[in-house]
Amino acid sequence: MSASFDFAVLERAGAARRGRLTTAHGAIDTPAFMPVGTAGTVKAMLPESVASTGAQIILGNTYHLMLRPGAERVAELGGLHRFMNWPAPILTDSGGYQVMSLASLREIDETGVAFRSHLDGSRHVLTPERSIEIQDLLDADIAMAFDECTQFPATREETAASMALSMRWAARSRLAFRARPGYGVFGIVQGGVFADLRQDSARALRDIGFDGYAVGGLAVGEGQESMFRILDETVRALPAERPRYLMGVGKPADIVGAVLRGIDMFDCVLPTRSGRTAQAFTRRGTINLRNARHADDPAPLDAECACPACANYSRAYLHHLCRCGEILASMLLTWHNLRYYGDLMQGLRAAIASGTLADFVAGFHDAQARSRAAA
Amino acid sequence: MSASFDFAVLERAGAARRGRLTTAHGAIDTPAFMPVGTAGTVKAMLPESVASTGAQIILGNTYHLMLRPGAERVAELGGLHRFMNWPAPILTDSGGYQVMSLASLREIDETGVAFRSHLDGSRHVLTPERSIEIQDLLDADIAMAFDECTQFPATREETAASMALSMRWAARSRLAFRARPGYGVFGIVQGGVFADLRQDSARALRDIGFDGYAVGGLAVGEGQESMFRILDETVRALPAERPRYLMGVGKPADIVGAVLRGIDMFDCVLPTRSGRTAQAFTRRGTINLRNARHADDPAPLDAECACPACANYSRAYLHHLCRCGEILASMLLTWHNLRYYGDLMQGLRAAIASGTLADFVAGFHDAQARSRAAA
Repeated sequence: MSASFDFAVLERAGAARRGRLTTAHGAIDTPAFMPVGTAGTVKAMLPESVASTGAQIILGNTYHLMLRPGAERVAELGGLHRFMNWPAPILTDSGGYQVMSLASLREIDETGVAFRSHLDGSRHVLTPERSIEIQDLLDADIAMAFDECTQFPATREETAASMALSMRWAARSRLAFRARPGYGVFGIVQGGVFADLRQDSARALRDIGFDGYAVGGLAVGEGQESMFRILDETVRALPAERPRYLMGVGKPADIVGAVLRGIDMFDCVLPTRSGRTAQAFTRRGTINLRNARHADDPAPLDAECACPACANYSRAYLHHLCRCGEILASMLLTWHNLRYYGDLMQGLRAAIASGTLADFVAGFHDAQARSRAAA
Repeated sequence: MSASFDFAVLERAGAARRGRLTTAHGAIDTPAFMPVGTAGTVKAMLPESVASTGAQIILGNTYHLMLRPGAERVAELGGLHRFMNWPAPILTDSGGYQVMSLASLREIDETGVAFRSHLDGSRHVLTPERSIEIQDLLDADIAMAFDECTQFPATREETAASMALSMRWAARSRLAFRARPGYGVFGIVQGGVFADLRQDSARALRDIGFDGYAVGGLAVGEGQESMFRILDETVRALPAERPRYLMGVGKPADIVGAVLRGIDMFDCVLPTRSGRTAQAFTRRGTINLRNARHADDPAPLDAECACPACANYSRAYLHHLCRCGEILASMLLTWHNLRYYGDLMQGLRAAIASGTLADFVAGFHDAQARSRAAA
C-alpha cells in the first residue's frame, strides 16, 4: 500500500462510478454518504446504530472538537475513533467553514484565521499547519486541506482572491500532512459560480497532488441548477483515479444528480438535523410528523424501510413523540433518516453495478414528483 | 388463573421476600423496579434497551397520557403496549398525583377532581370511575385506585379527612375495575406520617379487597427514617400473599431499606431524570459527570457495569457529551442508571434466594459509606 489509501473504481455508468476506498480503519463503498458527527457524536445516535444504517464513514468537525474537548485531549485518550467508539473510517473537515459560520471577531491574513469561540469567547488561531495537526491528533483517516470559505454571493474579484488564498493554504496543508498508509488528505476546489476559476482551482490542486478532491463552496444558495452546472465543469478537471467529495450536500435529489456527475462522497447535516425537527425523508417524499393528520395513523412512516422507527412504530406514535418533544422522537427519526440516506446510496451503488442507473434515477424522480403532487 | 394475576412468594428473608407476579403481558420477578415511561416513552430509551437493563415492567402516567395523545386514541391504536412497542407488563398510576403536582385550578369534591391541563389550560375531570376507565383503555396490566394526594406536611385532621376520601374513592375504583385474568388493581394506603391512620387505611383497603397494595404519600419530604418507620407499621397490616408497591421511591438506599421491610415493587423518576442531568449511580456512589475532574479520565463510569455506557466509553467522553448538552449523554446515562437499578434489584433477589441478604445489604452500605468518605 502506498503512503495514502487505495481507491478503486469498480464500475462506471456515464460519469457516475461505483468504487471502494480503503483506509486505515476500513473500507468505504462509494458513492457514500457520511453522517455528520459534529462534536464526537452523530447526534441522538449510538455509533452501532449509525453503522446499522449502512454508513461506513462519518464526518467529524475540527472546529467543534478543537474547542471541546480539545484535539490534544482526544489524542491523549486514544484518538477520535476510540473516544467516540466509532472504529470505522472518519473524515474530518478543516475547521474553515465553521470558523466563518460560527466564530466571531475573525481576522484573516496570509498566515491563517484568528477568531473567538462561539462558546466562551476564547481566542484561537487556525492555520493550514494547525488544522492538519489537529486532524492528525484526532486520527482522521481523511483530512481536509484548510481553506477560506468564500462568501456567497461574492464578486468575481472577491472569489478569485479567496480561491487563490485557499490554493496557497492547500499547498501548505499538503506539506503539513504526515503521509502514511491508509491515511489521506483532500484538496478543496473553490471558485464560486465561476467556471474558469473552478478550473483554475482544480488545476492548482492537481499540481499540488492530493489523495482525493473535494468540491467546496456549493449548496450555499446558488440553486441546484447552478450547482449541477459547476459540478459538470469542475469534475472533468479532476483526476479520474482519485475520490471526489461534494461537501455539505445535500438533499436526496442533489445527491442523485451529483452521483450522475461523478461525485463519490457526500456529507450533510440534513438527515440528522431534520430528525431532530420532526422531518422524515421517505420514498414518497418528506413528511412533517408534527402535522395533525398523523395523530391517528396506524401506518408506518415508510412501509419499505427496515429501520426501527418504521418496523416497530406507527406514524401516530411518532407524531405523539414529536408533539411532546420527547428525546425518542429525535432518536427514531434520525435513525430513519440516516437509513433512508443509507438505502439511497446502496440503491445508487447497486444500480451502477447492474447497469440500471437510468431506471433507478427515473424511479427516484417519479416518486418525488408523485409525492409533490400528493402533498 | 383467577380473574386477577398470580403472585407467588418464592423465598423469604426476614420481612423481605422474593416473588413472581404473572400478568397478561408476562411475568415480573420481585422485588422489582419499574422505570417510569411518563408519556408513552421511558425518556431517551428504546424499549428494547429498557428491557436489556433487567426491567420487566414499566410505569405509564394516566395524567400525561389522557392529555396527550388521549386514552381513547391509544385504545384505538391497539393499547399502550403496542403504541409504544413495549410488549411486557405495564402498570399505570391513577393520575391523582400528577393532578395535584402539575395541573392548575383544581376543584375537589366527593365526585372527583376537575382541573386544567398544564399544557394548554383545557378543562378535564378525573373521578375514580374515569381513572379506571382510562387505565383500561390503555390496557394496563396493573391499574391503580384513584386517590387524593395528601399534602405534606398536613395536620392529623387534614390527613385523616384526605385518607377517608381516598378510601371511599378506592371502593369506587375497585367497583369500576373490570376484573379479568392477568389484570389487577391495587389499592393505595394513605395516612401520612400517622401510624394509626396508616393502619386504618390498610384495613379499609383489605376490607375492599385488592389484587395488590401500594403505599402512597411517602418520599414527599418526611425523611428516610420516618419513611422506614411508617413502612414497618404499614406493611404488617397488609396481606402477606399479595404484592406490595412503594410508590415513587426512590434512592438506592431507600429501595434496599424498603425491600428489607417487605416491599415488592418500586417506581421512581430518579434514574431516568438523573440520566438527563449528568448524574450517574454507581457501585461507588453517585457521580456528577459535569465535574471537570472527569475531563481526562480514561476509566469507565463503573468498571463492574455491563451497560453500553460503561462497556464502550470513558468518563472523559461522557463528561464531554454532558458538557456539550448532547442527546447521547442522556441516552447513555439513562441506560446506565436503569442498568444500575436493574442490577441492584437482581442482586437483592439473588441474595434473598441464596439466604445472603444480610451480607448483600452490609456490602451495599459499606460501598455507599466509602464513596461518601472519598467524595
